[in-house]
Amino acid sequence: MSRTTALEILAVPGIPMIEAGDDLAALVAEGLARASLKPRENDVIVIAQKVVSKAEGRRVDLAAVTPSARAIELAREVQKDPRLVELILSESVRVVRSRPNVLIVEHRLGFVMANAGVDQSNVAAPDGPQFALLLPVDPDGSAAALRQRLATLCGVQPAVVITDSFGRAWRRGTAGVAIGAAGLPALLDLRGNPDLFDRPLQVSISGFADEIAAGASLVMGQGNEAQPVVLMRGLAWNAPANPAAELVRPAAEDMFR
Amino acid sequence: MSRTTALEILAVPGIPMIEAGDDLAALVAEGLARASLKPRENDVIVIAQKVVSKAEGRRVDLAAVTPSARAIELAREVQKDPRLVELILSESVRVVRSRPNVLIVEHRLGFVMANAGVDQSNVAAPDGPQFALLLPVDPDGSAAALRQRLATLCGVQPAVVITDSFGRAWRRGTAGVAIGAAGLPALLDLRGNPDLFDRPLQVSISGFADEIAAGASLVMGQGNEAQPVVLMRGLAWNAPANPAAELVRPAAEDMFR
Repeated sequence: MSRTTALEILAVPGIPMIEAGDDLAALVAEGLARASLKPRENDVIVIAQKVVSKAEGRRVDLAAVTPSARAIELAREVQKDPRLVELILSESVRVVRSRPNVLIVEHRLGFVMANAGVDQSNVAAPDGPQFALLLPVDPDGSAAALRQRLATLCGVQPAVVITDSFGRAWRRGTAGVAIGAAGLPALLDLRGNPDLFDRPLQVSISGFADEIAAGASLVMGQGNEAQPVVLMRGLAWNAPANPAAELVRPAAEDMFR
Repeated sequence: MSRTTALEILAVPGIPMIEAGDDLAALVAEGLARASLKPRENDVIVIAQKVVSKAEGRRVDLAAVTPSARAIELAREVQKDPRLVELILSESVRVVRSRPNVLIVEHRLGFVMANAGVDQSNVAAPDGPQFALLLPVDPDGSAAALRQRLATLCGVQPAVVITDSFGRAWRRGTAGVAIGAAGLPALLDLRGNPDLFDRPLQVSISGFADEIAAGASLVMGQGNEAQPVVLMRGLAWNAPANPAAELVRPAAEDMFR
């Protein structure tokens, strides 16, 4: 396998506040041009979920949400707005854990995560109408579409990773993870490669796109989307592409839900 | 908070095979000098756990291990070498999940991880005596000592992160995590910082050192330690240092063990 020896993670400057319908790939291409960054093959464009969701119109006005009886009951337990809980349930296939201030669900895409990714940060001013933002409908599809559009605009086809910050079992603090990917192996299977002593590697399936997301998150900044687009340059891989859906452990294999 | 806009992650070249008693910091300093990399404040030296463990003499000859009755019974269930299981149990406070080929424990330092980090890859040739490598006794202490020694050798005091690759609940593939840290906030609490609309951020405690570890892992290579030391340059933070022990969620707060 080709080796990564030097990696650059660069903020793409000047990405504006994103509105529904914006041509996000064009804004990324403009930002890259502004920074005199000419995309190359094997570059990875890493994009925060929030700007993808906004461009795709996934913002919901809470005033338009009518909570179900189940949402009202669960909202009482977890001490959240029943309309928010209604949105969370509508994005989920089941509740994994609920406690005051905690609602961990299995998102319809299989992600085990807090609040089904439904978020109110960076969405609207606190004194106006209240909005919430949902994950993209199909983040792997979004990544593939962004990649295709970037190829048209830039002439080369970088890989694309869409990131979110997830809490983890057993560990405190959130970390960047990949919810969408195109053009690289989100899950990288190295089993059978030799170790330094030519002993086959045993635990050698890497959450490659999750590590990309976590590294990019160091530049995006935590919880804030002032730098929502990042270019990662210098990464080598030598395996077929697969989507971020591959990073989701099927419930039947999972010992912790 | 000061902003990270460009991050470099560079392999430190020429780190030799590490033996017990090696002056790891001196080898890192030599590697940096070889690459004409002069350490700076706010640089992070990221070091794979395996080379730290080797330098600290944490290699155990399996021939010297006598498995207990409990280890023999558990080894039968998980289909592993009873001597290896004995070592795993000796490094653990309890078994979290066991199945054929799976042994997830709570390590004595609180890490919920496979095999208590006891590993046979990159330790010895498959046809000779069989060795296993344990985690450092005190990885935060190891990081602090390496940092101190690097300061003496280099004149500036970089931060140090010691990494391992952990499997995760709910997601496939491993990702780099920090098991030791010195000189930076392993857990970075941003609660109360404003979002883009001056709404206080809500979920804003970042597993900062875990994201550093994951990003560095992209350069170290997965499962192989040909590039076990990495320099991360360009990272900005503005919070007091805390150790990697802060990343461990106390069992009493944890909903998934």
